[in-house]
Amino acid sequence: MKHARILFEGVVHAVQVNDDHSVRLEDGRVLGEQQVTWLPPATGNMFALGLNYADHARELAFTPPTEPLAFIKSPGTYTGHHQQTWRPDGVTYMHYECELVAVIGKPAKNVKREDALQYLAGYTVCNDYAIRDYLENYYRPNLRVKNRDATTPVGPWIVDVADVPDPSNLTLRTWINGELKQEGTTADMIFDIPCLIEYFSSFMTLQPGDMIATGTPEGLADVVPGDEVVVEVEGVGRLVNRIVSEADFFKNNVKHNKA
Amino acid sequence: MKHARILFEGVVHAVQVNDDHSVRLEDGRVLGEQQVTWLPPATGNMFALGLNYADHARELAFTPPTEPLAFIKSPGTYTGHHQQTWRPDGVTYMHYECELVAVIGKPAKNVKREDALQYLAGYTVCNDYAIRDYLENYYRPNLRVKNRDATTPVGPWIVDVADVPDPSNLTLRTWINGELKQEGTTADMIFDIPCLIEYFSSFMTLQPGDMIATGTPEGLADVVPGDEVVVEVEGVGRLVNRIVSEADFFKNNVKHNKA
Repeated sequence: MKHARILFEGVVHAVQVNDDHSVRLEDGRVLGEQQVTWLPPATGNMFALGLNYADHARELAFTPPTEPLAFIKSPGTYTGHHQQTWRPDGVTYMHYECELVAVIGKPAKNVKREDALQYLAGYTVCNDYAIRDYLENYYRPNLRVKNRDATTPVGPWIVDVADVPDPSNLTLRTWINGELKQEGTTADMIFDIPCLIEYFSSFMTLQPGDMIATGTPEGLADVVPGDEVVVEVEGVGRLVNRIVSEADFFKNNVKHNKA
Repeated sequence: MKHARILFEGVVHAVQVNDDHSVRLEDGRVLGEQQVTWLPPATGNMFALGLNYADHARELAFTPPTEPLAFIKSPGTYTGHHQQTWRPDGVTYMHYECELVAVIGKPAKNVKREDALQYLAGYTVCNDYAIRDYLENYYRPNLRVKNRDATTPVGPWIVDVADVPDPSNLTLRTWINGELKQEGTTADMIFDIPCLIEYFSSFMTLQPGDMIATGTPEGLADVVPGDEVVVEVEGVGRLVNRIVSEADFFKNNVKHNKA
């Protein structure tokens, strides 16, 4: 089963998603994928992994980590399926990052890896865009790299744990304007989801709606305004997103700009 | 005027705080400081500064930064005035950090420093405890340093902007068991509050209830279970907190431990 959050006629709905990506509202109405505004399917904290695929660590010229490297993203950076995101003016590198996301379903503290999947609500996908110009800063990653408004598409939906029999063997792919640019497999994760839940929950409580963004494999490339970027995790979802310029984004999304 | 959030008889109240630290509920009842459970006065994102006092940067043997170094804390790490926090078993360094906190009052995007104070709800205090054992990790700071449950006392209250005429000239002090251990002044901040609001809002929207924890001066020392730690920012507030062991904390705070 797939679960999403959508906006329709000004109201947020928790919906079930059908195989054709139409959604069913609580009152039984069925709406097409293009008729609704897709919201991030969860709104908790996002704990995002850096360098969790050895090939990607090599690509950035880092030694693979010996323990999970994680940073926090604030919810203002999330956006939904089919939403726009934006490239800041004057930057050199805006890289997509296709990632499998584990969504927490119940409070998790001191969970052992063999029990970890019991604490999940399910899986979703994110595109953890990085403005890599600013990575040099020694508090890594600088918030300008990973925490701008609406620069982390998440979704389209959460797939139940039972519907993903082996999360450690899923293909990840990214296309820019229809051209395949990134391809990897979750089999190459350095720290897999059970291990990450054990790690995080050993020193803090993971809460329902929290998300663990598990990192991206190699294959980065720059994206520019006008690009359509599709990230897909096999058996979980395909998340579509279009890049616009900074000026166009803030013209179209005045809610971000009101003071 | 001082504003707080408290829990009384199972209900959360937004209250005004009197000069004797009694609080006034919406229905006019007045309760003493010890009669209520003090909650963090804001619950938005916390953007915390590293090495924002040159003396503290020297103390940790770092070069003072040339741009703000910030990381995000998730709300599970906040706790309130007079609450317990805990020292993890088997660590070598648990350091208090007395900090002035700017609380955002309205959405702030592309704000210039000369207008910045208009976007504040007011000021509060935090004790941004660090488990410094884990600082070596090259994604800094490791979440084990700064993001454990209930290890960031915040409060006791928010003081209105108008009641703090010069936030750039306030004394910060920390006492352990009544002994003064840390003393500094916000005059020594490398990046002051207007500068920080300009910086953050240049690439993301600060939201009402978000907090900027502005860093700590030199004077760190280790704290252990049994210690009473008091952090004070002149003209803002005095935040009291007692350290217990990991075992005692999770025995006393089972809500953190349920799965």
